[in-house]
Amino acid sequence: MLAFDAVESAQRRIAPFVHRTPVITSHTLDHWLDTQAFLKCEHLQRVGAFKYRGATNAVQSLSPDDAARGVAAHSSGNHGAALALAAATRGIPAHIVVPRTATRSKRDAIAAYGARVVLCEPTLEARIDGVADVIAQTGAVEIHPFDHDDVIAGAGTAALELVDEIPDLDVVVAPVGGGGLLSGTAIAAHGRRADMRVVGAEPAAADDAARSLAAREIVAPGPPATIADGLLTGLAPRTFAVIAEHVETIVTVSEAEIVEALHIVWQRTKQLIEPSAAVAIAAVRREDYAGARVGIILSGGNVDLALATR
Amino acid sequence: MLAFDAVESAQRRIAPFVHRTPVITSHTLDHWLDTQAFLKCEHLQRVGAFKYRGATNAVQSLSPDDAARGVAAHSSGNHGAALALAAATRGIPAHIVVPRTATRSKRDAIAAYGARVVLCEPTLEARIDGVADVIAQTGAVEIHPFDHDDVIAGAGTAALELVDEIPDLDVVVAPVGGGGLLSGTAIAAHGRRADMRVVGAEPAAADDAARSLAAREIVAPGPPATIADGLLTGLAPRTFAVIAEHVETIVTVSEAEIVEALHIVWQRTKQLIEPSAAVAIAAVRREDYAGARVGIILSGGNVDLALATR
Repeated sequence: MLAFDAVESAQRRIAPFVHRTPVITSHTLDHWLDTQAFLKCEHLQRVGAFKYRGATNAVQSLSPDDAARGVAAHSSGNHGAALALAAATRGIPAHIVVPRTATRSKRDAIAAYGARVVLCEPTLEARIDGVADVIAQTGAVEIHPFDHDDVIAGAGTAALELVDEIPDLDVVVAPVGGGGLLSGTAIAAHGRRADMRVVGAEPAAADDAARSLAAREIVAPGPPATIADGLLTGLAPRTFAVIAEHVETIVTVSEAEIVEALHIVWQRTKQLIEPSAAVAIAAVRREDYAGARVGIILSGGNVDLALATR
Repeated sequence: MLAFDAVESAQRRIAPFVHRTPVITSHTLDHWLDTQAFLKCEHLQRVGAFKYRGATNAVQSLSPDDAARGVAAHSSGNHGAALALAAATRGIPAHIVVPRTATRSKRDAIAAYGARVVLCEPTLEARIDGVADVIAQTGAVEIHPFDHDDVIAGAGTAALELVDEIPDLDVVVAPVGGGGLLSGTAIAAHGRRADMRVVGAEPAAADDAARSLAAREIVAPGPPATIADGLLTGLAPRTFAVIAEHVETIVTVSEAEIVEALHIVWQRTKQLIEPSAAVAIAAVRREDYAGARVGIILSGGNVDLALATR
């Protein structure tokens, strides 16, 4: 399992490239949550998401020879954009396999960071085949969005900054999709303070991580049914192992709770967080953390406004 | 005309009550604007708008006897909420006359700050009569939203903080509706540096301030036709006088330019600014400020998301 010092190393490695994002507080939000919340603002990270930390750590960890061949991934969202910018920053090629059903704005964002966009059919099989083809042609190194130690270690640096900046946190909450953010967060938090409570937050409509924890084995996700489109993925062996050992519980929240949390944060903090980040807020609202100091990882701000305001 | 030292006094008077809001920058926004922009974040002010500064200065400037009788205003938006909170903070009553057509959320916001909401018909005459009735009944002191020296001086403190924090600004840009923010900004900026360029920004669909400046007399606004609903009001004698003396030009921008600027700021900075604030961004985009350092007052963040994302 990934060790804490990998997160510390990642922090040193990526520091020149990532934003040290602010931690904000809001009295009215605290009142609504009935706790004292410290929001780690990864929506203000480059590319608008924590994903840039893991992608940067992975790209900067490559040997010069590997790096020269470039990197590849399939993604329709933040990981693709993050990997594209991380590669561009190191001056190496990135090949991102994108389902042809992805919105034009997402494809354009990936291309704007200088990556080669390779379109494929919108099935997992076609995406995997697409990456295999790219690798066969170019020798590029695949960077998985979360089932990858360097990516997890990079993701954990957000929580490391939070825990080091805000003393005496009792709980830290992160949303869970594939589990990269939550496992990195858990390793970082417990690396600093073994008794900190680490909690995952997941849409009830995509509760495969909660069910995996209960079943003590990975349960595959069902069909997409949540506004929190960053949390559709199932766990991987690597993230499941960390979560099973370190995470106290995974709180599930309804779609109505997610939308309510999203709008409260928008109104009260004027910060344009994405639905996946609102999942963590909604989980804190649902749980009883009165009297506690709660750190919340706001995963990103890549929101389709037209969708979110339905 | 209001003197600069009134702005300095206002700053000392309101400091215990208002947020000193951050100034943010964004490389991608600078690229889009083709200049170096410094955004003064009044959307992160209490009540979500610069209006809280002027309301607080007016309320805190009242003699104890006047204050005891309370304050009154007609408003369907930010000024009402700002005056309500400013009064509550001093522990005095506020009576806000609100057109019965105002959205429930605006009425609720004013009431939530502890003010008495007095509904009236949605005409200017009914609003003025409503305030007169309240004053006759209660002896409350009317606090006009902008035609009031204490309110203008309070509004100017945002620019004063900006100019003091960011050295060597060449231009400062603020949106103009009734002109309270722009006149306060002008007095503050020229109080510190006589050669600073002060520019107003206005929707072309509500360009009465630009026409007033051209005509050298106050031109009344036409019917409401802009998404920037904070900028519908016409100038008052007090604000016109300041603007005519201090403001270099008023840049007008189309509705399409406002919406584009709004979405760019939302996407790039993840800051949920309101359309009126985007008017200032759009004006900077339209003008040629290459090589200049431009301060922009983001007036607030009170946005109807459903409306703005049409």
